[in-house]
Amino acid sequence: MELNIIKVGGNIIDDESKLKAFLKVFSVLEGYKILVHGGGKVASEIGLKLGIEPAYVNGRRITDKTTLDLVTMVYGGLINKNIVALLQAAGCNAIGLTGADGSVLPASRRTVMDIDYGYVGDVQSDKVNTGLIKLLLYNGLVPVFSPLTHDGNGSMLNTNADTIAQEIAKAMAAVMPVQLIYCFEKRGVLIDAADESSVINRISEKDFSELKEKEIISGGMIPKLENAFAAIEKGVSRVIIGHADELGALVTGNAGTWIV
Amino acid sequence: MELNIIKVGGNIIDDESKLKAFLKVFSVLEGYKILVHGGGKVASEIGLKLGIEPAYVNGRRITDKTTLDLVTMVYGGLINKNIVALLQAAGCNAIGLTGADGSVLPASRRTVMDIDYGYVGDVQSDKVNTGLIKLLLYNGLVPVFSPLTHDGNGSMLNTNADTIAQEIAKAMAAVMPVQLIYCFEKRGVLIDAADESSVINRISEKDFSELKEKEIISGGMIPKLENAFAAIEKGVSRVIIGHADELGALVTGNAGTWIV
Repeated sequence: MELNIIKVGGNIIDDESKLKAFLKVFSVLEGYKILVHGGGKVASEIGLKLGIEPAYVNGRRITDKTTLDLVTMVYGGLINKNIVALLQAAGCNAIGLTGADGSVLPASRRTVMDIDYGYVGDVQSDKVNTGLIKLLLYNGLVPVFSPLTHDGNGSMLNTNADTIAQEIAKAMAAVMPVQLIYCFEKRGVLIDAADESSVINRISEKDFSELKEKEIISGGMIPKLENAFAAIEKGVSRVIIGHADELGALVTGNAGTWIV
Repeated sequence: MELNIIKVGGNIIDDESKLKAFLKVFSVLEGYKILVHGGGKVASEIGLKLGIEPAYVNGRRITDKTTLDLVTMVYGGLINKNIVALLQAAGCNAIGLTGADGSVLPASRRTVMDIDYGYVGDVQSDKVNTGLIKLLLYNGLVPVFSPLTHDGNGSMLNTNADTIAQEIAKAMAAVMPVQLIYCFEKRGVLIDAADESSVINRISEKDFSELKEKEIISGGMIPKLENAFAAIEKGVSRVIIGHADELGALVTGNAGTWIV
């Protein structure tokens, strides 16, 4: 049976009615499935009220201890548990996880050159605890991941949700066929950024080179697609990028951009 | 194999060095084990900063929506995940849970007479998802419960940690021998409240009646012991009350008060 790993971002999480509609569609998807959720604005809002200012070192955003506590409670508690409760209400047997739970996502604290990003974790696909994920899936549970990992030395770490989805997908591809779906605020990769109907249905690595050259694909979409191709190289069947409103059609290949 | 269900309260959670020492002892306990943690002062402290005032109706503390969000993030996120990360660092394969995760603790919202307590859940032992708890225990995982349940309609609920420990103990007693251990700030039930060396080693139901009559046991200790006897009636092997500092000795019956 195929495993669908679906990443949903902050723009949906911040909108209660959109989130509920999304979770309703997610709850009835057949087969094995995993949800990975991002952060959302609520963490910054709560942070502001608590007087936690975003911290920067040399112009780079870092996760200091106060920010780590903030994201641990908001991502791992508020957002994750509300999603789990909503999925349970929709008849989906969700179980919320951070990377610390069952040490499902061990990570190492990121230090790049001379920049210490603080409590930020990089997870590697060969460290993902696929045994625990299999155990949960085979017993009818639906893992819901918050964007948090741990360092194995007693500290939680802040980790990008896109990366978590990708590393789980790569790791699980060794166990079963995996489809990785990124839900965001566009209908897919667009030929014309201003025209939502200009979705490119399929992109191969060759297409990608050409589209980059012609500057049809640019900016933040480039690393997104590079990561998608990296996932496919590691055995992920396909990566699909599209709008959260179209989740059902994305999963069956009737919407969004397929990266193959 | 015997299951030890250990409840630890806020006084330990609020003290990082005490918490770490406690978790170190917990991590090396042999056999099946479950940790249930309470809230701690940190929720009120964060609540104060967020401008969340404790809410009362007719003099009764209630959990309004804002308070529910607060405890969901602090209990289910901050406290629970930090405990899990610390246990993982100590080599204990902890997995953090609220009652919503895998619907392990379905609850009903409490309404008593004309008082609506807000988002407060009462969990019943015959509703506890023992299948999931068994699955986790049999696979070497150590469940760590935060004091949260859910109503099955999409909402989290605030639930007393003592009650959660007790209801899980009663439910699991049908599956395996269960020992329920309440860690608090006293060495056990004391003959003289001012003398920590006056611990009563064993209390039977008959002893309890006599001690109540003589007013040696009074106040908050009465419902605690009534609950303990209720648990034993439902098949829990024994309930032990003692100091968190003595966890190792409590488990082996060398400290605290045994209720049998």
